[in-house]
Parts: sequence; structure tokens; C-alpha cells
Amino acid sequence: MTTHRQIKLGVFLSPSGHHAAAWRHPDTNPAGSTDFEHFKKLAKIAEAAKFDTIFTADSDGIWGGSGDADLRSRRELSTGFEPITLYSALSAVTKNIGFVATASTTYNEPWHIARKYASLDLISGGRAAWNVVTSGNAEAAYNFGLDAHPDHAERYRRAEEFVEVVTGLWDSWEEGSHVYDKASGVYYDPDKQHILNHVGKYFKVKGPLNVPRSPQGHPVLVQAGSSEPGRDLAAKTAEAIFAAWQTLEDAQAFYRDVKGRAEKLGRNPDHIKILPGVYPVIGRTEAEALAKKEQLRELIDPKIGLSLLASLGGLEGLRDYDLDGPVPQDLPETNNNKSRQRLLLDLAARENLTIRGLYEWVAGARGHRVIHGTPESIADQLEDWFVNGGADGFNLLAPTYPSGLVDFADLVVPILQKRGLFRTEYEASTLRGNLGLPIPANRYTLADYIGKVA
Amino acid sequence: MTTHRQIKLGVFLSPSGHHAAAWRHPDTNPAGSTDFEHFKKLAKIAEAAKFDTIFTADSDGIWGGSGDADLRSRRELSTGFEPITLYSALSAVTKNIGFVATASTTYNEPWHIARKYASLDLISGGRAAWNVVTSGNAEAAYNFGLDAHPDHAERYRRAEEFVEVVTGLWDSWEEGSHVYDKASGVYYDPDKQHILNHVGKYFKVKGPLNVPRSPQGHPVLVQAGSSEPGRDLAAKTAEAIFAAWQTLEDAQAFYRDVKGRAEKLGRNPDHIKILPGVYPVIGRTEAEALAKKEQLRELIDPKIGLSLLASLGGLEGLRDYDLDGPVPQDLPETNNNKSRQRLLLDLAARENLTIRGLYEWVAGARGHRVIHGTPESIADQLEDWFVNGGADGFNLLAPTYPSGLVDFADLVVPILQKRGLFRTEYEASTLRGNLGLPIPANRYTLADYIGKVA
Repeated sequence: MTTHRQIKLGVFLSPSGHHAAAWRHPDTNPAGSTDFEHFKKLAKIAEAAKFDTIFTADSDGIWGGSGDADLRSRRELSTGFEPITLYSALSAVTKNIGFVATASTTYNEPWHIARKYASLDLISGGRAAWNVVTSGNAEAAYNFGLDAHPDHAERYRRAEEFVEVVTGLWDSWEEGSHVYDKASGVYYDPDKQHILNHVGKYFKVKGPLNVPRSPQGHPVLVQAGSSEPGRDLAAKTAEAIFAAWQTLEDAQAFYRDVKGRAEKLGRNPDHIKILPGVYPVIGRTEAEALAKKEQLRELIDPKIGLSLLASLGGLEGLRDYDLDGPVPQDLPETNNNKSRQRLLLDLAARENLTIRGLYEWVAGARGHRVIHGTPESIADQLEDWFVNGGADGFNLLAPTYPSGLVDFADLVVPILQKRGLFRTEYEASTLRGNLGLPIPANRYTLADYIGKVA
Repeated sequence: MTTHRQIKLGVFLSPSGHHAAAWRHPDTNPAGSTDFEHFKKLAKIAEAAKFDTIFTADSDGIWGGSGDADLRSRRELSTGFEPITLYSALSAVTKNIGFVATASTTYNEPWHIARKYASLDLISGGRAAWNVVTSGNAEAAYNFGLDAHPDHAERYRRAEEFVEVVTGLWDSWEEGSHVYDKASGVYYDPDKQHILNHVGKYFKVKGPLNVPRSPQGHPVLVQAGSSEPGRDLAAKTAEAIFAAWQTLEDAQAFYRDVKGRAEKLGRNPDHIKILPGVYPVIGRTEAEALAKKEQLRELIDPKIGLSLLASLGGLEGLRDYDLDGPVPQDLPETNNNKSRQRLLLDLAARENLTIRGLYEWVAGARGHRVIHGTPESIADQLEDWFVNGGADGFNLLAPTYPSGLVDFADLVVPILQKRGLFRTEYEASTLRGNLGLPIPANRYTLADYIGKVA
């Protein structure tokens, strides 16, 4: 077992790939979104390559729900499996890989989230993580009786209390609460059961949870979002963070900022793993990598390109401008994806992109860092951020699935392993063990409490 | 493939077994409630024996949450896995058996239920069923910000609209909506996507669901509950019904009543399978069966017996009476489990049971029919109800798991098969195919509509 710091790697799954036109690429299976065997294959490739996690985004509504029907029908839909349902099935056919399932604090009840994730953690033998989101898709509101999506600040206030309640419910049972003593007839130790009795602004939840403590203490808490409230919540609660940065400088500033905020709150900064997204286009030669990019670029319909800028980046109204002219900087502010909108406008200014150039860029990595080149060059670009304080690891967004993941697993992972930057065997059977995260203290357990203050 | 009518069989799973003292029995694994391998073993035994379904009850709270702590600690807890999470994992390691997952319409949102069950139906290749309940456990209310559990009638009004919304969301996409045409760039056919726009008393839900149509059209709808509103809802929507009857006469009356109500609503009565619970105590001889009953009876603590009558049957205040005296008939009416309370009082009167006798009876089958004897005798008792209009099949509550299920699979199933009463091979890969239920029409599909009125 290595004791030096190594890169943590996750795969951000999607049915056909992260390029918006991936589903039209000859390598991909666009029906994969509802094909369990497709996801099983991806999970097994990732596990054979010793990845830490697989991850999917999520939304409680169809993306791009409104607008032109013909236009909508030409985009890959966000239809498919609910994440916990998918990952629970995958847990039965894998052994080591961790599952980062997304769920919204805006459109759920803490009880259900606490219960489902604790169940997944038990069923998977300690491989569950919850990606806490507040929902970027305003369409979700209409599926829950609301007339409008709550604003950003309101969503984050609810999220903070939501996470408090969920972690509280996860402490309902101390380690070893269930004694199952057949002879004496004692099933559980009542001193190790705790009633939460939470009463707050958004929630009133009694408890106890009807799931005992899970192998990881509780599932790993993951977050994304780089807005001010997002950073505060992450510093307070997150154990892994997905981020989207284009430059090492921005990544370093975020890394320092969030770890600094966490330290001020008394947390160990090593216990938050920061994992920026990377979109790797891998060729055996530079020319092959460029040809792969070009092949996908040609599959983008310009109307789809504009609709992506609107739906994913909050950049509305661009169809009134020249596609080959500059990106206007004075667009109205958005309720959702604030940080994504800022990132896109900054990128367009910095790189001097036309509207077409910007949507071609978004169609690929959707705001994440694009790296392309030979396997050695890809490894160099990852190592650069990892050793220079920009990342603890990466969340991989392959342009196409499964081919883009296979390329990374076959060509890049062995180089990272040879350099001593990535594991050759899993360190542990739990996700916490592999990520190097501690088992969280149970607030009611004296030994845990002493360990925490010592 | 047989064309004559055959018995449908489900297993009502529980960690140690259905006898309240099962967890203390030497044959059982009381830690099974949080051991995925335990449930995997039970599922595989049931599938090898060609059972139609496995099923678990569910509650959004701990049963017996209030009251004496010492007393509570001596009962098997209702802690364990959330059902969809459990069944999704089991679907990945089985091929034919169906999954009846319970979820409450009182403490959920239709969107989440529609989505999770549709996901499970796709992941399992068409083996999902939803057991629609309104929650019998008043403790659940406190986990969702409420001060009290809504009353029975209110819960059923909400349930009816809830099921309407869920089935509406399941029709969001017609069969073949996703065309994935790489060449033309058309991902889906907009004419086959439908927006529900439900506005009712309890729910306002826009849709479309973000899960396409599943292999069964939609999951099988299951219900229990034999109150008036329960029967109405079942006649309108259920495709399988769990029931608890003691006598063939009561079972026949229920069978005729519910099928009659369904027929009046224009439904085919064969498309509702009525499956009373049976609790079989199987011995190679009658004496062995009786000894098995006695062994479990001796493990019941009288205090636990009384608490079972209160929590499961709504019979409160019995500790003030002589355990070996008659059961008083003038107890106050309960908000939950109305039909269970009535059943218990009727049973006590009919069988002239003492309080002790009643709790010993409840500790076993909790209101379900107890049958004991040799395998031939068990088969006779099942055949009797099946051929005499009392049942389309049975939901098996084994006294102990896995041993009680193994006994039934090894000793009784071959007799039923020999008599031509039970399948020797699965007829289909979907649960509907095995239960003999049609694929439901999609309300928006013309061909389905014509099929329905023809």
C-alpha cells in the first residue's frame, strides 16, 4: 500500500458520452440510457481500471422542457434511470467501485434521502456517496406543485438544513446498536438508539431513521457548485467536490479557498477531495486526437448549439446575434447555474470566442476543462494540476462511451500507475477507504466525541 | 406452456421470519435485515422454486416508536433496507422473479414514485410491481413535518389521486418514442411525448416523466387493505391484491366482491389476482408440524405479545385484563388498521380465544391464515381455496427464513407441480407475463385505445 498522495479518479457517466452530439457518433449506443447492461459494462471497465467512483448527474424533470418541439427532439434527452435505483443494481455486480448518486435537496424530503442512501451504503458494503445538489433545472418545480423554482439563495438555505437533518438521521443508531441476543431476547441496545427531534425553518423530523448505521458511518458527501453559498456549504459539509475550471490559476484559487474555509471551521483540509472535471480527447498521436475532436464537432447542429448555451449556461437570446461574431457580455443574470454563466462569459472574453466557437466548446465539455493529445500528454496535464495545488484528482467526462472511457483506461491509467500517481490495487473495500476519508463521528458516541476533540 | 388456470405464488419476505419470535429461533439470521447476501439467498431460493414474486412490507418510521424502551428493545425492529434500493440490487442477480416493492402514497410525491418504479421496471427487464399503501404506522407523520397521521378516509382520497398521477406520468412516453436516428439527428419522436399537466385536489404535476415507457407498459399495481375505500381503490386500479382471511367463506366473499366491483367498472376480473396470505407450518409428519409451532410459541415474551396486539391490531389497553380471560369486544376504534382490528375481534369471538391465545396467534401470522401439517396437507389446503373461488394464488408468510421457505420450496412446490397446479418453468421474462396480466394501454396511443374499446 502506498503512503504518498495519489490521484483520485471518478467517471462522470452518461449514456453516449459528454459531447452533445455523442449519441450520433458511430462508436456510441444512444439507447444506453435505458439499458442496464450498458451501465454495467461501463462500471466494470471503470472498476477494472481501479477508478474510485462512477457518477451521474440528475434532474427531477426533463431538461429543455419548454421551447420548440422539433428542436427538443434533436437533442439527447435526459431520460433514463433514477440514480439510486441504478447504483443499487450496479452494486450487486461490482466489488470496489464507489457510487456517487445525485439527489436534490430542493425536491426531496430528508427522510427519504437519508433512508435510501443509508440503504445503498449497506447493500454496497460501504460504497455510497450523495452528490448534494439544489437543482439547476427550473422545470422540476412544476413536477412538485410549485409555480416557480425557488431562487438560488433560498435553495441553499434549505440545502444547509436538509444536510443537517440527513446527517442527524444517519446518527440515529450507534455502531453495534443491534445486538440480536437470542438467549436473553434483547434485539437492540436502547442506549444506542437516538431520536433526532429536529425542528428548523424548513423541516420538522423526529426520527429515528429505520436503517441502522452503515459501514462507512454514513455515505460520503459530495458537492459541486462554486458560488459563494455553494462554497460555504461545501466547506462545512462536503468530503469531495466536483468543480469546473479552465485554468490552473482558477483551480488553485478555488482549491485554496475551499480548503481554507474548511480549516477555519475546524475541519482537516485533507478530508475534502477536490476533483475538477476533465474532458480528455485521447489519440495515439496529436493528429488522431484532433481528428476525434473534429469528428464530433461536425455532428453539432447550430440550432442545438444555441439551445445548449441557453439551457446549460443560462445564455439566452443569442439567436439574434451573428453566430460568427463576438459573444455579448451584457446578457441578463440567471437564477440557475450562476457560476456556469460567469465561467462561459469569461471564457469567451479570454479566448476571444465567437458564438459558434462558444457553443462548440460547450457542446463538448459543458464548462469543464478540455485536454487533448497523446496518452503521455494527457497524463502530463493531469499531473500538472495534481502536483501544483489545483486538484486532488479528477472527474472524467469522456467524449463518447464506452470508447472514450476504454481509451483512458487502456492508455492513460497505465502511465499514471507507472509514475506512481495512481493505485494499481484498491486500498480498501469501502469508498472512504479508497478516497482516504475518515469514518465520521456519530454525534452521540462518546468515543467518537473524544476522538474528535482530542 | 399450460393454458389452464394455475396458482400464483409470492413470498412475503422478512429478515428472520413472520413469527414475532422468529429472530430468537436457532434456524434464523436476525442480522439478515441489513445483510444483502441474506436477501439474495432468499430471492434465489424463491426463483429456483418458480415463485412469481417476492415482497416486503414497508413503513416510513420505526414501528412501536413510542412506549417502554426496554419493551421495544426486545422486539425485532423494522429497520433494514428501503424496498426499491433492495429490489434493484436483487434484480441484477436474478432473472425471472418479480419484485413487489411497497411505497406509501401518504408520505411520498407521485413524481418520485413514478420515476423509481419505472426505473426498476426497466433495470429488471419488466419485473417491478408497486404495492400501494397509505401507511398504517402513525409514527411516519412525525418524520415529514406533520403533527398527526391523516385519517383513513383522507389517506384514501389522496391515494386515489396519487395513483392517477403516477399512471399518468407512466404514459408520458409511448412505446417506441425514442428513435435514436443518428443519420438524421432525430433523438425522439415529439408526437410520442405527452405532457400530463395534472391539476387536482392534492397534486399539481406537469410531467413528462424523465423515464421512457418500461417493458411492462408500467409496473404491476398491487394493493392490500380490505376496508370499503380500500376495496374501491383496488377494484379501480389493482392488478394483484394481498388479503388476510381466516375462513374460505370470508375469502370467497371478498373475492366475489372485489372482482364484482372491478367488473362494474368495466374491468376484466381475471386481470385482478387475489392472493391471500398463508402462514404454513410444515412438518414431514403432523407431529413435527405441531412441534415446530410449539417451539416458536415458547419464545414469545407475554409483554411482547400484548405490545403486538396494540401495535399491529390496534387493540390497546389489554394489559389491564387477565391474560387467560376472554378478549373484551368493546375496545375503542382505531385510525389505522381498521380491518385488522375487526378481524382480530371476530377471530377471538369465533374461536373463543383468551388474550394470551390471541397474541400467540398474532405473533405467528399477524392476521393471516395459518395452515399446518404435512406437505400433502398443506397442498390440499391451498388447492381447496384455489379451486373454490377463494384465491388466485397465495402470498406465503414463512414462520422462519430461510428454513420455512426452503421447506415450502422443497416439500410443497413439487406436490403442487405434480397436481398441475403450479408452473414447472416460468412462462415469461416479465412479471405480467407470469401473472397472466395484460400490458396496460397507454392513454395516448391510438392502437391501444382501439384495443381497449374493441
